[in-house]
Amino acid sequence: MFRAGLRTPTAGWCRGWTQANLIAVPSDLAYDMLLYAQRNPKACPLLDVGDTGSVSTPLMSGDLRTDVPAYRVFENGELIDEPDDVCAAWRDDLVAFLIGCSFTFEAALLDAGLPVRHLEQGVNVPMYVTSVPSRPAGRLAGPLVVSMRPFRAKDVAKAVAVTSRYPAVHGAPVHVGDPEAIGIMTLGRPDHGDAVEVRADEVPVFWACGVTPQAAVVASRPPFAIGHAPGHMVVTDARDTDYVVPLT
Amino acid sequence: MFRAGLRTPTAGWCRGWTQANLIAVPSDLAYDMLLYAQRNPKACPLLDVGDTGSVSTPLMSGDLRTDVPAYRVFENGELIDEPDDVCAAWRDDLVAFLIGCSFTFEAALLDAGLPVRHLEQGVNVPMYVTSVPSRPAGRLAGPLVVSMRPFRAKDVAKAVAVTSRYPAVHGAPVHVGDPEAIGIMTLGRPDHGDAVEVRADEVPVFWACGVTPQAAVVASRPPFAIGHAPGHMVVTDARDTDYVVPLT
Repeated sequence: MFRAGLRTPTAGWCRGWTQANLIAVPSDLAYDMLLYAQRNPKACPLLDVGDTGSVSTPLMSGDLRTDVPAYRVFENGELIDEPDDVCAAWRDDLVAFLIGCSFTFEAALLDAGLPVRHLEQGVNVPMYVTSVPSRPAGRLAGPLVVSMRPFRAKDVAKAVAVTSRYPAVHGAPVHVGDPEAIGIMTLGRPDHGDAVEVRADEVPVFWACGVTPQAAVVASRPPFAIGHAPGHMVVTDARDTDYVVPLT
Repeated sequence: MFRAGLRTPTAGWCRGWTQANLIAVPSDLAYDMLLYAQRNPKACPLLDVGDTGSVSTPLMSGDLRTDVPAYRVFENGELIDEPDDVCAAWRDDLVAFLIGCSFTFEAALLDAGLPVRHLEQGVNVPMYVTSVPSRPAGRLAGPLVVSMRPFRAKDVAKAVAVTSRYPAVHGAPVHVGDPEAIGIMTLGRPDHGDAVEVRADEVPVFWACGVTPQAAVVASRPPFAIGHAPGHMVVTDARDTDYVVPLT
């Protein structure tokens, strides 16, 4: 359906199948990106890395140029296009990185009786560019990006516990409450995705987000990069259960 | 003490402080090694990667050329030296990789009432080069190396559970029982480290081992590499508790 042109956020889609963030950079920047991911494991848990020029990976047997609902194309850190496919923009020297996505643990949150607001509202998850720097690697540096889900104060500990078991897909939150402490002045105006309701008895809980490498691209201005449109993820052939630490 | 020349396996040393495997390769092989680690996360959980030429990293503030009890120096895949320091062999183009070590979870095994045989016997952990291939990356390929600890059949599940909580330091076993299935014909003759007693009521349990990149060096024959001597680890400034998934 995505290949045929459907453009939609993928939260809640294909339950049980692992979704991933995409960042593809020219091979001469690939070491820096691989190191950036290693140095920022909460934001950039790597699920798979393609060979140079390859449009598929072991975890994603389709075509990375067409099978994502929407893309972002960057030149010198500027967003120049948000196409439905990147057949025209793709280059033979690109290395594709697939990075874990917090959508994986949302099913576990639901299973634990914790409603996920953006799923209830049928919108994209809200994401924010924070004032927290990521750890630089080579030519790449930039701010941490987070996703936010509100929970009642009594449910925060359970949300922490459930997501802690998924270190390969961002794991435990990086910040609970106090949005201004990480530079988020207005919860109602996310930098990516959609605003969601945060009720009076709820605390905003923030998880590191796989859009962080795109923020590094914007901040560091490499000549070229392709990412997914935030919230419009790569649906992989992996299962969410592959990434949970068993509670034994 | 290591800097002054002490040469000893480090199992049981500096309890609570994280030990690590070392592999250092020339910068033109660093991408392949980083990718090899990403593609073999059970064997090569990366804790830290140094900048090119740097002899320390954020997790290891000492000097990687002197502060490891013993080293292995490889040229074209041949082990050419096992010195106490590598001040003479070190090169300015080397990139150092620190990889998690199963010694981290041994304290947790002990805390769970599970004795660890090589600690009881005061010897190095036995390690075996298996017939299981690792996943290649660029110019690097080779067999999986494993460490072995024997447990009573009734304790195997607990050993699995305890170590599952440490995915950053090899995590759960890769193989339980049946050594011949992974090409280990004689438990009493490990490829690295020391043989330990395996009693009649015990099952050998195998964990992926951070010596695996050295086996890739031997198999793939890059021009140059430096590793630690197996079992003679880098003692880092990190805490073992940094790498456990909380049981909440």
